[in-house]
Amino acid sequence: MALITLLHGPNLNLLGQREPHIYGTSTLDDYVAFTTTAANEFGHEVSAFQSNHEGALVDAIHAARETSAAIIINPGAFTHYAWSIHDALAAFSGPIVEVHISNPNAREPWRHTSVIAPVSTGSIMGFGMQGYRLAVEAVAAKLSAS
Amino acid sequence: MALITLLHGPNLNLLGQREPHIYGTSTLDDYVAFTTTAANEFGHEVSAFQSNHEGALVDAIHAARETSAAIIINPGAFTHYAWSIHDALAAFSGPIVEVHISNPNAREPWRHTSVIAPVSTGSIMGFGMQGYRLAVEAVAAKLSAS
Amino acid sequence: MALITLLHGPNLNLLGQREPHIYGTSTLDDYVAFTTTAANEFGHEVSAFQSNHEGALVDAIHAARETSAAIIINPGAFTHYAWSIHDALAAFSGPIVEVHISNPNAREPWRHTSVIAPVSTGSIMGFGMQGYRLAVEAVAAKLSAS
Amino acid sequence: MALITLLHGPNLNLLGQREPHIYGTSTLDDYVAFTTTAANEFGHEVSAFQSNHEGALVDAIHAARETSAAIIINPGAFTHYAWSIHDALAAFSGPIVEVHISNPNAREPWRHTSVIAPVSTGSIMGFGMQGYRLAVEAVAAKLSAS
Amino acid sequence: MALITLLHGPNLNLLGQREPHIYGTSTLDDYVAFTTTAANEFGHEVSAFQSNHEGALVDAIHAARETSAAIIINPGAFTHYAWSIHDALAAFSGPIVEVHISNPNAREPWRHTSVIAPVSTGSIMGFGMQGYRLAVEAVAAKLSAS
Amino acid sequence: MALITLLHGPNLNLLGQREPHIYGTSTLDDYVAFTTTAANEFGHEVSAFQSNHEGALVDAIHAARETSAAIIINPGAFTHYAWSIHDALAAFSGPIVEVHISNPNAREPWRHTSVIAPVSTGSIMGFGMQGYRLAVEAVAAKLSAS
Amino acid sequence: MALITLLHGPNLNLLGQREPHIYGTSTLDDYVAFTTTAANEFGHEVSAFQSNHEGALVDAIHAARETSAAIIINPGAFTHYAWSIHDALAAFSGPIVEVHISNPNAREPWRHTSVIAPVSTGSIMGFGMQGYRLAVEAVAAKLSAS
Amino acid sequence: MALITLLHGPNLNLLGQREPHIYGTSTLDDYVAFTTTAANEFGHEVSAFQSNHEGALVDAIHAARETSAAIIINPGAFTHYAWSIHDALAAFSGPIVEVHISNPNAREPWRHTSVIAPVSTGSIMGFGMQGYRLAVEAVAAKLSAS
Amino acid sequence: MALITLLHGPNLNLLGQREPHIYGTSTLDDYVAFTTTAANEFGHEVSAFQSNHEGALVDAIHAARETSAAIIINPGAFTHYAWSIHDALAAFSGPIVEVHISNPNAREPWRHTSVIAPVSTGSIMGFGMQGYRLAVEAVAAKLSAS
Amino acid sequence: MALITLLHGPNLNLLGQREPHIYGTSTLDDYVAFTTTAANEFGHEVSAFQSNHEGALVDAIHAARETSAAIIINPGAFTHYAWSIHDALAAFSGPIVEVHISNPNAREPWRHTSVIAPVSTGSIMGFGMQGYRLAVEAVAAKLSAS
Amino acid sequence: MALITLLHGPNLNLLGQREPHIYGTSTLDDYVAFTTTAANEFGHEVSAFQSNHEGALVDAIHAARETSAAIIINPGAFTHYAWSIHDALAAFSGPIVEVHISNPNAREPWRHTSVIAPVSTGSIMGFGMQGYRLAVEAVAAKLSAS
Amino acid sequence: MALITLLHGPNLNLLGQREPHIYGTSTLDDYVAFTTTAANEFGHEVSAFQSNHEGALVDAIHAARETSAAIIINPGAFTHYAWSIHDALAAFSGPIVEVHISNPNAREPWRHTSVIAPVSTGSIMGFGMQGYRLAVEAVAAKLSAS
Repeated sequence: MALITLLHGPNLNLLGQREPHIYGTSTLDDYVAFTTTAANEFGHEVSAFQSNHEGALVDAIHAARETSAAIIINPGAFTHYAWSIHDALAAFSGPIVEVHISNPNAREPWRHTSVIAPVSTGSIMGFGMQGYRLAVEAVAAKLSAS
Repeated sequence: MALITLLHGPNLNLLGQREPHIYGTSTLDDYVAFTTTAANEFGHEVSAFQSNHEGALVDAIHAARETSAAIIINPGAFTHYAWSIHDALAAFSGPIVEVHISNPNAREPWRHTSVIAPVSTGSIMGFGMQGYRLAVEAVAAKLSAS
Repeated sequence: MALITLLHGPNLNLLGQREPHIYGTSTLDDYVAFTTTAANEFGHEVSAFQSNHEGALVDAIHAARETSAAIIINPGAFTHYAWSIHDALAAFSGPIVEVHISNPNAREPWRHTSVIAPVSTGSIMGFGMQGYRLAVEAVAAKLSAS
Repeated sequence: MALITLLHGPNLNLLGQREPHIYGTSTLDDYVAFTTTAANEFGHEVSAFQSNHEGALVDAIHAARETSAAIIINPGAFTHYAWSIHDALAAFSGPIVEVHISNPNAREPWRHTSVIAPVSTGSIMGFGMQGYRLAVEAVAAKLSAS
Repeated sequence: MALITLLHGPNLNLLGQREPHIYGTSTLDDYVAFTTTAANEFGHEVSAFQSNHEGALVDAIHAARETSAAIIINPGAFTHYAWSIHDALAAFSGPIVEVHISNPNAREPWRHTSVIAPVSTGSIMGFGMQGYRLAVEAVAAKLSAS
Repeated sequence: MALITLLHGPNLNLLGQREPHIYGTSTLDDYVAFTTTAANEFGHEVSAFQSNHEGALVDAIHAARETSAAIIINPGAFTHYAWSIHDALAAFSGPIVEVHISNPNAREPWRHTSVIAPVSTGSIMGFGMQGYRLAVEAVAAKLSAS
Repeated sequence: MALITLLHGPNLNLLGQREPHIYGTSTLDDYVAFTTTAANEFGHEVSAFQSNHEGALVDAIHAARETSAAIIINPGAFTHYAWSIHDALAAFSGPIVEVHISNPNAREPWRHTSVIAPVSTGSIMGFGMQGYRLAVEAVAAKLSAS
Repeated sequence: MALITLLHGPNLNLLGQREPHIYGTSTLDDYVAFTTTAANEFGHEVSAFQSNHEGALVDAIHAARETSAAIIINPGAFTHYAWSIHDALAAFSGPIVEVHISNPNAREPWRHTSVIAPVSTGSIMGFGMQGYRLAVEAVAAKLSAS
Repeated sequence: MALITLLHGPNLNLLGQREPHIYGTSTLDDYVAFTTTAANEFGHEVSAFQSNHEGALVDAIHAARETSAAIIINPGAFTHYAWSIHDALAAFSGPIVEVHISNPNAREPWRHTSVIAPVSTGSIMGFGMQGYRLAVEAVAAKLSAS
Repeated sequence: MALITLLHGPNLNLLGQREPHIYGTSTLDDYVAFTTTAANEFGHEVSAFQSNHEGALVDAIHAARETSAAIIINPGAFTHYAWSIHDALAAFSGPIVEVHISNPNAREPWRHTSVIAPVSTGSIMGFGMQGYRLAVEAVAAKLSAS
Repeated sequence: MALITLLHGPNLNLLGQREPHIYGTSTLDDYVAFTTTAANEFGHEVSAFQSNHEGALVDAIHAARETSAAIIINPGAFTHYAWSIHDALAAFSGPIVEVHISNPNAREPWRHTSVIAPVSTGSIMGFGMQGYRLAVEAVAAKLSAS
Repeated sequence: MALITLLHGPNLNLLGQREPHIYGTSTLDDYVAFTTTAANEFGHEVSAFQSNHEGALVDAIHAARETSAAIIINPGAFTHYAWSIHDALAAFSGPIVEVHISNPNAREPWRHTSVIAPVSTGSIMGFGMQGYRLAVEAVAAKLSAS
């Protein structure tokens, strides 16, 4: 049994309310519950945190160093410029999965750059809520392999 | 009668103290009072908030979704890189006016880019405190037209 | 009482006829009349001129040096490359307001650059015809302050 | 029951032999078998094809229009410049998943661009062979949702 | 009487099936027949070839050196990066006409570059099937002038 | 029977005199007569206008909105920077054909960009005077199809 | 004895009035008189023309083909983007001297590019009114050498 | 005696734990103590603050305007994009020293840009903990000189 | 005795026929014979292959992994964009020499980039057929040294 | 009477021998003699120095601070990258004229940039040996004006 | 006791004479004496050398390989392009400190790039003469630590 | 019998001492001796010169115009920016071979540009000392062919 920290970046607290043609109608709570269920299936727990504050996410990543075996992160708009999150993730030793609900590469050019990708184990983009299950599964595989 | 959320970004709490040759000697309180007076003339109220924290401005924009009919925002330096504010504003359905006291296009090159502009109804730049009155007027016209 | 020169650049003589989903159905005459009314309220007069010729606009700016206290200009496509208008405006000593009916920053990338902005007092973009009233008001404030 | 076309691009026939520190020691046959097993679990079949020829992959994508409900593709180096594959995929109406064994964003800069991503449903990168299972799962979810 | 080699690049075998809002409903056979009829009117013959393989198109251009007086080519996506086709065409001494059914300059930025244009006699873009008749006519004029 | 406006941009009044190794020895009058003959064959008329003035071309395009069913334009050097012509053409509802006597893509790099192309129905480049006949034919086909 | 066409571009009619810290207090008439005197010393005449209209300058260059042995041109802001003037000058067979009163390379970056230079015999920049005498002298030397 | 505000940006709370091959094994407390000792030698005091929050650092810089004679700042990843810190520092009138433990110019390209440098008195990079002593010494010299 | 695989890319089958002012009049057979003779002098054999198909060259490089001690490759136009060849060569463990008959750096800008160079032992450019002898010699030296 | 330092940069000692189609057949001695004669006419003397060594030119500029009233410099290839010469010239208080025999803007792109221009009083390009007489005249005018 | 080689690049022999508003009034001798005194305090000696010649600095760095334990270098304008100094420093095994009297990042853009930084132990910029003392101290710390 | 000038640029006097993992342990004398032996085999002589001074290399190339039939040059770091060497080589009429011991294209990006290549007959890179023998052989072939 391991703890997975599940992080959401800015504006994702509005999931279900904002731009449903892009993000669907499920709420953040739905996402967390769905991810937790998936993690439980693999015998893992989830600790979820959302913030619109870059610093709060950095703090949460630091905390995860003590408590968690893996991180699943949807950094929202921070994906594209928040190098402090890059540096925080670089200091985490377990698997890190970057998840995006939609496919950023099919949207505006500034969404094509990820400053998180270079320090992630891998990325899963474009599969909606299902992407979180895939991320859990990827984490579970990494944890059982190590 | 409608509520207008008036947002100021980083360092604008120093208005009147910092670089008066660029920004003048009026304080942030002066700006808020001036804007409120203008809004009252049009039968509207103003709820003002300043923060040096990107996340706090995102939070305030989210809150405005429930309370306010329009947003007037001077994002300060966040204008140029804070995509999380872009995303937050994109989830606000009323008119959004970007205001700048000075004319950013007449200053350093990095001040020429606005990540806020693509999601704003319009922009007003370079008119000092007067620009806030113009913004209120623009908002009032939009609200009465809708 | 002062005279404000109101300048419109290329294709704006088609206002009301061209791309009404972007520019609305008001004609250039409507715009001039609306602006004149606004100016009159502040005790000012308007001298309006439209041209599809860059040189004719330069000539008009030169003429305004003798006759006018301020310039309000919607340069149309000249906004993006007509440096001779930049130089002409730089030789005008009163307030200069750049107005755009739509928000150029929300359109094609080549519309994001303004060669006029560096020599303008300020810019007002995205507020349709209402933007002209705001421009008049900005000019009036500048003139009464000087 | 649906057929999934599994495509591998250039040099992936060398899997298990080439740069094992990056790609591991499993062979392409191992990858195909693993993916087929995963697909079977979801009640689907896999039709696998590898080619070092861009045109052969385009042909295969065209063929899949008749036979398959989904495509999983690891385009290898074609990821970065083979716009003909982009156009072929754009003419396929089912879900398309781009898979990479390693994380291209953590390697040379020219590997950071994907001309495939804009026409893919989503991408899964960096999870080794496990990524194929995730891709199957993503496809299965899409198919059952449609 | 002369032979004109008519070449089509990748995905154009799908004409009539793929993205009909861009490319219409005529099939490749329709295009070839239409072009042949036009050529016959001018007393010329057409030898048509389509391939999704860059090398096969290079081979066909080489073959045309022996058999054909002119080349009409719609290179599809190869337009934008297939320098080997550029080099092959540079070794052909007759007129070369680049044809595009739609207008690439009105689509995505990567479609604005043609590596074929520098070695073409001329280009005809945006006129649908009619463009092939124009190409034939252009070729006929060149051939009768030489 | 329809009227086609035929526009020539700067320096094309020198046709036959300037750089004959590039542009040949036919004069502008020859070009107009040749185009008119071609149009007559299709039952159309031609109204020709040449100017070295960007604004005069914009004016002529505006006038064509009332009188003409189509525009054939060789913008000369304006091709590469005259966005006001782009905007004027965007307000014309009939077919627009951009013609170039030589192939700009085979000349200096600054001639590779066309600001006219995005608003043109299509382009014909590199076929000398013959290109005008092709343009007429393209226009005739469009007009008979609509 | 030969005629030299002396051309001035936009805003140079304001010489002596505009930005005297850059351009000095001499008027355009002073410049023309000074240049004429210099030309007379070398046995040449000057025909001077100033315009804020790009097309008028193109027209004047065309006229000079018939009347003049040389051109001295200060293109003002047209230096940086008016490719139609480039093309017109390319059709002039005598010596062409580009003159600038100030040194554009010591000013804003957009003033560092000259689209005129590639077709000029030579350039003289930064010497104020004296630069015109040097230009005359350069022309005289070229004419006496040919 | 003067107060020096010592600021550390994101992830520097992990000093001694994170990437010791780059940053060594000393903790942030060690750094603060070392800097304080150095400051005491020069008769100055140190007020230290670390935050992962950009806004908190801006707040701290504002506070230092009242309390401190100088700022020593290691902005961590904020060095490369946090323009709000740039603006905050621009409003501080005493000496500002930017310190980096390692040499950013010898690391990834995105670490080569400092948005802080233009408003700093000077920079000290690459000397590990010793760099803080040098910074104190630089501050002390500036303070005794003023 | 070792086998050297000699690869030629697209259009090099036309050697002796195409652009003789650049490539001379020797045929590909001449080149192969010349290279074989040189190899024999060093006690090595040559297996030669030319293709206009990127995939066929990738296949040939894979085959060389089993049969050959070294590769000499003139990739033709593939030099500049065929990353799949880059990846194939990266999986070959013996010496790899990139040869060009002419000097690509003295030709068009797009010929200045080699995607092959980063995985080549070395490059020999500009020496015509003689370059192949030098390549053989370089290979022989590498093989005798290992 | 004043002394003018005349400096020539690398390869200009080959004048008359190297690329006579560009630089003519006059030798450096001819240039110096011609310039001296011109200077004498104005009552000035010339001290000439040529070097292929950047440092020697910097030394010579430093020396000119003591001895000379003006500098005329043809920096040759140093024009384009030798910032140390830029800095040396910036420390010279008299007029500085940059001279080029040919017109660098009509040659390769890397010759279009001058690192010398920003610190020069003015530039004279493209007039061959005559350019030196113009430079002397420009210097004489500046000296007599000061 | 160790020897520190102190190197100054081009134009720094003019210290105290050139641009005193940037560089102050101290001479190079003052700088050397100040640095020597500082070095003596730490028990070290200084060997100083200044040159305007890139090659002479390279020679001096080579010589320092035999005689010196550390290098302190203010490369002047060579900072920005002299890669031969980069390569020479890369061959020096002791600590290397890059010093700048002013802060290059607060000056012209071309001064923002240092080709020296990647091979320096660290950099000290913006502290005037005091920066040399800090450099000595940094060197002393490195030497005592090794 | 002909003389070949063999030139080495900056830092190559350190061969055998500097970065032996890149450059090996042979000294410059070894390289010269090896090259001389190779030249003697072909009946030629070698005159070798190394300098860390750009100007000295330019001088040596000038001298070679009188004495030598060919130049072999390893320009070291001057490869990437020393345009004065480019100009000097352009004035040499015999064959010029650029040699690099390692493969610059496999190292830092700034080493990928050669300002020497456009004026070289050809280049040989990546073959260590053996590359000099190949260069001699290439020269010998060119000399015997002319």
